[in-house]
Amino acid sequence: MTNGSTVDLGALLTRVRTNKPLVHHITNMVVMNDTANITLALGALPVMAHAPEEVEEMVGLAGALVLNIGTLTVEQVDVMLLAGKRANELHIPIVLDPVGAGATRFRTQNALRLLSELHISVLRGNASEVGSLIGVESETRGVESISAGAAPAVIARNASGVFGCTVAITGARDVIVDGERVAEVDNGDPLLATITGSGCMATSLIGGLLAVEQDSWLAATAALVIMGIAGENAAPQAGGPGTFRSHLLDAVAVLTADQLRERQKVTIL
Amino acid sequence: MTNGSTVDLGALLTRVRTNKPLVHHITNMVVMNDTANITLALGALPVMAHAPEEVEEMVGLAGALVLNIGTLTVEQVDVMLLAGKRANELHIPIVLDPVGAGATRFRTQNALRLLSELHISVLRGNASEVGSLIGVESETRGVESISAGAAPAVIARNASGVFGCTVAITGARDVIVDGERVAEVDNGDPLLATITGSGCMATSLIGGLLAVEQDSWLAATAALVIMGIAGENAAPQAGGPGTFRSHLLDAVAVLTADQLRERQKVTIL
Amino acid sequence: MTNGSTVDLGALLTRVRTNKPLVHHITNMVVMNDTANITLALGALPVMAHAPEEVEEMVGLAGALVLNIGTLTVEQVDVMLLAGKRANELHIPIVLDPVGAGATRFRTQNALRLLSELHISVLRGNASEVGSLIGVESETRGVESISAGAAPAVIARNASGVFGCTVAITGARDVIVDGERVAEVDNGDPLLATITGSGCMATSLIGGLLAVEQDSWLAATAALVIMGIAGENAAPQAGGPGTFRSHLLDAVAVLTADQLRERQKVTIL
Repeated sequence: MTNGSTVDLGALLTRVRTNKPLVHHITNMVVMNDTANITLALGALPVMAHAPEEVEEMVGLAGALVLNIGTLTVEQVDVMLLAGKRANELHIPIVLDPVGAGATRFRTQNALRLLSELHISVLRGNASEVGSLIGVESETRGVESISAGAAPAVIARNASGVFGCTVAITGARDVIVDGERVAEVDNGDPLLATITGSGCMATSLIGGLLAVEQDSWLAATAALVIMGIAGENAAPQAGGPGTFRSHLLDAVAVLTADQLRERQKVTIL
Repeated sequence: MTNGSTVDLGALLTRVRTNKPLVHHITNMVVMNDTANITLALGALPVMAHAPEEVEEMVGLAGALVLNIGTLTVEQVDVMLLAGKRANELHIPIVLDPVGAGATRFRTQNALRLLSELHISVLRGNASEVGSLIGVESETRGVESISAGAAPAVIARNASGVFGCTVAITGARDVIVDGERVAEVDNGDPLLATITGSGCMATSLIGGLLAVEQDSWLAATAALVIMGIAGENAAPQAGGPGTFRSHLLDAVAVLTADQLRERQKVTIL
Repeated sequence: MTNGSTVDLGALLTRVRTNKPLVHHITNMVVMNDTANITLALGALPVMAHAPEEVEEMVGLAGALVLNIGTLTVEQVDVMLLAGKRANELHIPIVLDPVGAGATRFRTQNALRLLSELHISVLRGNASEVGSLIGVESETRGVESISAGAAPAVIARNASGVFGCTVAITGARDVIVDGERVAEVDNGDPLLATITGSGCMATSLIGGLLAVEQDSWLAATAALVIMGIAGENAAPQAGGPGTFRSHLLDAVAVLTADQLRERQKVTIL
């Protein structure tokens, strides 16, 4: 990190790999396999469980809870609230991915409900998704951000104030904001935007880091740096989105703490 | 295209990439990731959404609706009807993939119900699936076509008459028929039959093309040519079905309009 | 095989490829695509179907039924019982994968219920999952085996006695036990443990073999040898878990009966 920060992101990666925390996902059906595999590649252990009969017990075993509304149903909202409330009781951090917020009222309202009824540590979305949650004019085409109507940094700062949590907006430049601090991450590759679920995968990485680091802003920043460097390392080996996805998982798995320290492009504002 | 056709399939591909239409999928859980990724590779934007509370709003944002019954439930049929009726009201085209029709009465009956209650633009299946919908003796083993009992072209022509829509039957040679026109596509590679969901992926490509081309027969033909050429380009790089799948997505993404024009093997009968 | 066995595992593989049996899966949403693709790579035909309206009819077409509780719900248990009872009536073999048993009471109890109400041919899990079903102290972190509390061979032998079926415990060394016989398989590669669902994929291979071989112990042993050799062949081509997964599917697809005979590391105790 620049600006005199002495935070060692490499040490966070090592901590995940040493502790192998369980990351409980209640997530969408499109990217379940990729999010499980990237969690494993990071060095954490994924589990996907959504039966109301077991989510409270399962989250109790976990280091973090990932909530992702990509293929949301009413029943799934109930399960997310059940698991989320138990996580809050146990002080297990939650990351929320409001996939497609802004595209339909159902998604926007339920993302807001989760933010209202649960204590969320990190909200991770693209600019239009997060913008829609604070009433910024934006266009979400399905689950893709078309135009956000405001600068991501402004949206992130406002959302962080409204929701009282760390907000991470991913894009060409990622912005991670909590009440006081702003980090910008310039790692990444355009191929990340060509595969479905790269945002969801970033959210899972945040879950893995939250399980070993109480500072949500730092955990989210580290996760997005890891995703970005992995994208940079995967891209030269890829012939397009299909092979990129495979190489991306490889790149997360073989990323070293030293490489993370050397390659991070983080600016603290 | 041969036979004096002056249709420029390459221009259709360019149109998808320029317009980036949203393609709303209500589809099966086996291939959700692949169908989302191939839609992105084509240049369109996929969204998977199946909550009854949001499908009518979501389909209103879309350029086309993909219905795929591969892991059908009673609840999913209801959601498909809800989204489909709204799509019909808004003149948003629908492509239906009757995965496994003929294997169980549940699939056959519900595919017929969707064809009866909705205006479907394109029905895309293999010969035994489509054959089963018009009462042709055939054998569907699970979701695989074992024997069709009649020539695909005959089945397609009859089904097109019965259902009043474009019918696309994929196989070694694809046949696309509407009331008047018959196209045969000889692009493709045997490896396409070795991965699960290649038919479903073709259906998603049809959805992407339907979103930018009102002529359903032309859209379906263009989609199957794209799938076929991508298969041809992916095959030499693959060591088997696993790597083929990755290269197939790459091949769709890097396919150019010019390559599409030069490599298409379409015969208009 | 050593110890004077004259069983020809290669012939079993050939039999799958000749017969192309349908393998009906009621399985988890995380690995559906991979388990479908590995079933195809083996030479069998996968079908995923879970609607109560069709599972009895579908399983009647199948050569084997795969039950996998990785993303279990109460509704799915009911469907598994419905399909399983029909499979038992028709003498269609069932393989059960108790994913995450021991992690939550819900998973343990429902795995036990399936074992109690259905005649299961093969139970396939890791040491802690299977151990939890017979009350052995163990630790399942989500769906990963952390420590089993007893030697896998002991757990397998006891579980086989308790449940009256073949028990296959996978790990660095796989152990396959029925009432009388014990096989150990030393094929495999550490990369198999780096991807999600390699256990689930092994279970699907067992399903494919069960469909052509009545001796459950032999079918499970052959399946785990195939998985292991495929892992060995895929590993040198992989740069990490993402590319490994693709090469693994390739390796199953191109594996020959002769290679299976020459490379098997099976010890009969």
